[in-house]
Amino acid sequence: MKKIRIGIVGYGNVGKGAEKVVHATPDMELAGVFSRRNPAEVILADSRVPVYAIQDAEHKREAIDVMLLCGGSATDLADQCPYFASMFNVVCSFDTHAKIPEYLESVNAAAKRNCAIISSGWDPGLFSMMRLMSESILPDGITYTFWGRGVSQGHSDALRRIDGVQNAVQYTIPIDKAVASVRSGQRPSFETREKHLRECFVVAELGTDRAVIEKKIKTMPNYFADYDTTVSFISEEELLAEHSKMPHGGMVIHSGKTGAHEHVVEFSLNLESNPEFTASVMVACARACYRFYGKGDFGAKTVFDIPLAYLSPKDYATLVKELL
Amino acid sequence: MKKIRIGIVGYGNVGKGAEKVVHATPDMELAGVFSRRNPAEVILADSRVPVYAIQDAEHKREAIDVMLLCGGSATDLADQCPYFASMFNVVCSFDTHAKIPEYLESVNAAAKRNCAIISSGWDPGLFSMMRLMSESILPDGITYTFWGRGVSQGHSDALRRIDGVQNAVQYTIPIDKAVASVRSGQRPSFETREKHLRECFVVAELGTDRAVIEKKIKTMPNYFADYDTTVSFISEEELLAEHSKMPHGGMVIHSGKTGAHEHVVEFSLNLESNPEFTASVMVACARACYRFYGKGDFGAKTVFDIPLAYLSPKDYATLVKELL
Repeated sequence: MKKIRIGIVGYGNVGKGAEKVVHATPDMELAGVFSRRNPAEVILADSRVPVYAIQDAEHKREAIDVMLLCGGSATDLADQCPYFASMFNVVCSFDTHAKIPEYLESVNAAAKRNCAIISSGWDPGLFSMMRLMSESILPDGITYTFWGRGVSQGHSDALRRIDGVQNAVQYTIPIDKAVASVRSGQRPSFETREKHLRECFVVAELGTDRAVIEKKIKTMPNYFADYDTTVSFISEEELLAEHSKMPHGGMVIHSGKTGAHEHVVEFSLNLESNPEFTASVMVACARACYRFYGKGDFGAKTVFDIPLAYLSPKDYATLVKELL
Repeated sequence: MKKIRIGIVGYGNVGKGAEKVVHATPDMELAGVFSRRNPAEVILADSRVPVYAIQDAEHKREAIDVMLLCGGSATDLADQCPYFASMFNVVCSFDTHAKIPEYLESVNAAAKRNCAIISSGWDPGLFSMMRLMSESILPDGITYTFWGRGVSQGHSDALRRIDGVQNAVQYTIPIDKAVASVRSGQRPSFETREKHLRECFVVAELGTDRAVIEKKIKTMPNYFADYDTTVSFISEEELLAEHSKMPHGGMVIHSGKTGAHEHVVEFSLNLESNPEFTASVMVACARACYRFYGKGDFGAKTVFDIPLAYLSPKDYATLVKELL
C-alpha cells in the first residue's frame, strides 16, 4: 500500500516528536522538514530526510500528502495554518482556546481544496472529545478538567522573564482533595486555588535577593497570584538533571445523573513527554485528514468531526472484530 | 425545533432506563413503547406514552424517528434488529462480542433506507472507542480492559441455576494489584485469575448443603473455575436490601511508548445503574443515528463511524466555543 507522505513544518519540540513518531509509523513516511532556519543548520535525527526552507514548501505540493504544522500557537500558527491549508492537507495543534472560533473560520476559508484538522493534540483534542462525549451522554452533569502534574511552558517562561532569574521550570499540579471530591459525585464549586497548585524550581543569578524573586512570583497576576505557589531555589545543574523532561497530563472528569443514580466518567493522561504525545495525536489525525481528503471532504475540521475509524491504519472489519 | 421521536422496543431494565432518559432529554420525545407482552399489562412510568404490541410497530413507521432496541443480545436482537432496521432507524446495544461481525452484516443488509447503530452502550461502545483511539495514537503499546466493580447478569444467572440456590448476585471486581501494574507502564501479562475476582452472594434454600453449593460454584467451568471466587451465604432479605442495585463500570488502560517515553491513557466508568447508563449512551447514539439518516447515510454503523459532534444536541459553533 502506498504510504502517506508527511511533511513537518517547524522543528522545535513537537516537530522533533513528530519526526520520531512518523518514523515509527508503518503506513507513513517522512518526506521533508520545513524550517525558517537555514536548512543546512537543521540537523534531523534521520539525515536521509530532506530539510527545506519554509518558503520552498509551495514547490513541494506534489510530494506531501499531509503537512504537520508544529509551530507555536502564540506567534506562528495564526498565519501559517491558513497559508499552508491553501496548498496542503494540514494538521495543527493550535491551543489558544479563546481564539479557536476565528482561527477555524480563517483556516476553513483557506482550505478550499484540502482538509485541515485544527487543534488536535490532547487539550484541545482528546480532552475536548471527552468533554463532548460525556456531556452528550449525561447532560445532567458537570465536567471538570484538571491539568498536570506537568510542566507548563507558559508559566516557566513567565518565571524566566523575572529579573535575577537565570532559569526556571514550573509544574502545574492538580490538588488531590479537589479531584477526590469531583470523583465522589458531589459536583463541587472551586476557587482557582482549590483546583491546582503551582510548583516553581528557580535558578537565581548570583547576588540576587531570593525573597524579592519569590514575592514577585507569588504576586504575579494571571500566572501565580490566584494560586498557592511554592518556590524552590536550586542550582542550574540540579535543574538540568531533574527538571529538563517535559511530562504532562491531566484528567477530564464528568459527574452526572440519571434520575437518582450517579455516574462518573473519567479520562486521564499520564505523559512522560508532552511534545511526543501531542505529535502522536497529530499523526493519527493526519491519517484522518488524508481520509477526509480522499473522500473530497475539504475544509477545516476539528476532532469533533472525525469518525474514530479514520484514526486507525487498520481496515474496518479488523477494527470491528478486534476492538469493538 | 422539531423533536426526535423515539420508540422503545422491550421494556426490561434497559427499556425502563431509556424511558427515563428520553423524558429528561429536551430535543427528544417518547412516541411509544413496543412490547411482546399484552400492552395493557405494561405499566410505564409516564402513562401518557402509548404502549403497543411489538407486531404493530410496522404500522407506526410514520410516528417514530429512531427505535431503541432494548432487548437482550442472547435471544432477542439477532432477529429483532434486522427486522426493525428494515423499517426504522435503530440503535441497539448488542454485546456478544464474538458475534458482532455477522450481526453487523445482517443488520447492514436490512438497513437499506435507514441508519442502524449497533453495539452502542459502554462495552461494546465507549470502551471500544477508547481502545481504538488509544492504539491508533500509541501503536507501540498494549490496551487492558478491566470490568467492575459491578453486577454481572450472566454470572448471577449461572449461580441461580444451581440446585439449592434460591437467589444470588455476582460481582466482578478488578484486582487492584493488576490495575496498578498496568498503570505503571510495565505491560504485564496476566492469567485470568490475576485480573478479576468474582464475589458471590447466595441465598440457599432451606435444608441444602452449603458446602456442596460452594464447591459447585467454585468449580464451574467458564464462569468461575478460572477465577478466585468468594461465596457468602446471606438471607433473601439481605440480598434484596443490599444487592438489588445494578452498579457497574470498569477501565480501559492503554500503556504505550514513543521512543524511550512511557505514556498511560486511561478511561474509567463508575456507574450506579448499568442499565440507565447504557440507555444514556443509546439515546446519544439515537441523535447520531438521526443525523446520519438526515444526510442519507444509510446502513449499519458502529461507534467507530460517529463524528462526536453528532452525539450532541448543541450546534457545531457552540461545541467549538464551549468544549474544544
